[in-house]
Amino acid sequence: MASKAIILVCDGMADRRCSALEGLTPLQAARPKSFDWIASRGECGLMDPISPGVPPGSDTAHLAILGYDPYKHYTGRGAFEALGAGIELEPNDVAFRCNFATVNNDGIVVDRRAGRISDEDAKVLSESLNGIKLVRNSDVEIMFKHTVEHRGVLVLRGEGLSRFVSDIDPHKTGVKFLHSRPLTDSPTAKKTADTLNEFVEISSKILAEHDINKRREKRGQPLANIILPRGAGTLPMVEKLPTKFGIKAAAIAGGAVYKGVCKAVGFDVLEVKGATGTVDTNLDAKMRAAINAIKVYDLVFVHVKATDVVSHDRNPTKKAEIISRISAAFSTIVSEVDLEGTCIAITSDHTTPSEVGEHSGDPVPVALYAPGARYGNVEKFDEISCASGTLGRIRGVDLMPIIMNYLGKVSMYGE
Amino acid sequence: MASKAIILVCDGMADRRCSALEGLTPLQAARPKSFDWIASRGECGLMDPISPGVPPGSDTAHLAILGYDPYKHYTGRGAFEALGAGIELEPNDVAFRCNFATVNNDGIVVDRRAGRISDEDAKVLSESLNGIKLVRNSDVEIMFKHTVEHRGVLVLRGEGLSRFVSDIDPHKTGVKFLHSRPLTDSPTAKKTADTLNEFVEISSKILAEHDINKRREKRGQPLANIILPRGAGTLPMVEKLPTKFGIKAAAIAGGAVYKGVCKAVGFDVLEVKGATGTVDTNLDAKMRAAINAIKVYDLVFVHVKATDVVSHDRNPTKKAEIISRISAAFSTIVSEVDLEGTCIAITSDHTTPSEVGEHSGDPVPVALYAPGARYGNVEKFDEISCASGTLGRIRGVDLMPIIMNYLGKVSMYGE
Repeated sequence: MASKAIILVCDGMADRRCSALEGLTPLQAARPKSFDWIASRGECGLMDPISPGVPPGSDTAHLAILGYDPYKHYTGRGAFEALGAGIELEPNDVAFRCNFATVNNDGIVVDRRAGRISDEDAKVLSESLNGIKLVRNSDVEIMFKHTVEHRGVLVLRGEGLSRFVSDIDPHKTGVKFLHSRPLTDSPTAKKTADTLNEFVEISSKILAEHDINKRREKRGQPLANIILPRGAGTLPMVEKLPTKFGIKAAAIAGGAVYKGVCKAVGFDVLEVKGATGTVDTNLDAKMRAAINAIKVYDLVFVHVKATDVVSHDRNPTKKAEIISRISAAFSTIVSEVDLEGTCIAITSDHTTPSEVGEHSGDPVPVALYAPGARYGNVEKFDEISCASGTLGRIRGVDLMPIIMNYLGKVSMYGE
Repeated sequence: MASKAIILVCDGMADRRCSALEGLTPLQAARPKSFDWIASRGECGLMDPISPGVPPGSDTAHLAILGYDPYKHYTGRGAFEALGAGIELEPNDVAFRCNFATVNNDGIVVDRRAGRISDEDAKVLSESLNGIKLVRNSDVEIMFKHTVEHRGVLVLRGEGLSRFVSDIDPHKTGVKFLHSRPLTDSPTAKKTADTLNEFVEISSKILAEHDINKRREKRGQPLANIILPRGAGTLPMVEKLPTKFGIKAAAIAGGAVYKGVCKAVGFDVLEVKGATGTVDTNLDAKMRAAINAIKVYDLVFVHVKATDVVSHDRNPTKKAEIISRISAAFSTIVSEVDLEGTCIAITSDHTTPSEVGEHSGDPVPVALYAPGARYGNVEKFDEISCASGTLGRIRGVDLMPIIMNYLGKVSMYGE
């Protein structure tokens, strides 16, 4: 009987038949050997991360796959970004994803990424915004932290705040940045929208006068003269996964949102050198970290982002190549862990058709090796082969109970 | 078109691949001919009795398979035990499963079964407890009935009682028996816990002074000097199955809890000589009773416990043997009933992996013969073959509507 489990999620790995691959999916074109081994000795199926036909976001897909129904527990993306950026959120905090952006004198957004501002510049600018005092909303504490390139996180801390406010970010260029509006009638939403608007007013003044921007102007670089917050979120109040199942759980991921979701549900997030959340990530380092982690943890979750990046770039050929590389790196896990005592699951958090370039609502293939598992005749890990496996068609929220059942960690319901 | 249906549930029959069976499941090793016939002419699939990954109890699994969502309708095990023992429960009654057990002078439980006390001794002791008067809770009527060996049922009857109280039974030896605590803030829970504690106080005195125990002491047998109630339950308030579908339904089962669940949802429970709920049960008698019953009832439910017993004993080889025996007995049904007018379903209420010995949350195979059914290419009734059947993966609560649909008994929804 298994006592440990490793889950590998390759972001956006699932795809459709691609004409550039002569009608194959990137998984079919890649023929990933270690994944095929898991499929041939494991239960296979298709999984709707959220619900059939519904394209999942990165945050909701991961909540579901980790066992939390996003329709019940999702409280906005901002909190995951903040957690992933290393901010310790409190229950009343409202967090936002932010971009450094460029507006002209009329407030029209001309560049949503301020010319893909460098980490160096964005970091210095961020420090000038962290801890600033507001006037109308002087009781609200402001935390601002830079993450990667033009991205940052804003946290509002204080009494009587709400996540039900609209974005400042208009999500496109050529239009004026938005004023945040309360999305409910509650005074908390009103206060939060006003706080957010005041933050944008005051931070814009600080940014306009900042030396970094004076230097950027001289060099002809787009000014980073506004912060565009979006995706208000609060910490989801869930029973943590380690408590729910009586286990120790660790996560290995590059991107902030994945780290954040894992932290929110109680995983220890392990820092791995070279895990960048992009195509140049150090796959071998991540797999090695997983092998080490499974010695002390019951559950290790490994997230690889690269498959989604190339899908958004609409590059099915490159996607097949990357899948082969991930599978090759993953073979170390298959050959080194104790297969008598370990479950190994491979799946994807959503489909990103690489000839479309956006998340879609198609189901994803899943393969689950476990000692004693009732595997069938599937020989290959791909969207079509897995459809005839013994798992059938499951939902994202089912995956964690199915895995924990193999570990004997799901409480009996009834007597 | 079918007008009748027979359902055979073999308790805990579903299993995983067993190393003792060279990687086969007991069903695969048994190759049960009459089950295979149903599978090859019926719709096959996998069924999650409760929800994927969730190990079902005996009570909740049966509620679900009979068409009642246990998350909505489950009100504790005690009521099913009481009904199964032949007590006519009233809506406000709170019932408990009980063990005769042995405690030492410090209240430490030293034997949870009082040396597997005989039916004879337990029956006499039970009679001395039935109808006793309490002092603090004199308005509550006490019913106590012996069932099998060390087992009995306690029913509290009166106004203002609740099932939200904790067990007296510590579920292990070497520790003191527990005091019942209210599990909610309501006065009814408080009153019920106090009544239960008072019953244990008073019944312990009666047992201590009882002639049976004096004789047991002389003979060196463990004293049956305490009752350990557990699993508080009330009658579930559901629309009865015969009313819901306009049918007459009968159940054939040995164990009290299965009889109880069937009674609770409106089945007539038929007594069959030799149906013991153990491995020595008279399978032929049960199948013969089913053949007779289907002449007058629209739906006959047959439960066989033996498969679960040997699973808990971790004996996959014996399990395969028992499956073969059940299949052989069941062949009488297949050959004698009118196949033009009868649906026949075979399934299991949960998986009990016989190399683990506990209920698990894996799905169970299901095969459903019906005139006109859209059967596919499955040839064998087992966990792996059925996964590629035309039923797909269903839930326990779906089974009864699927069967009743073949009988034309499900009301159209909409117009």
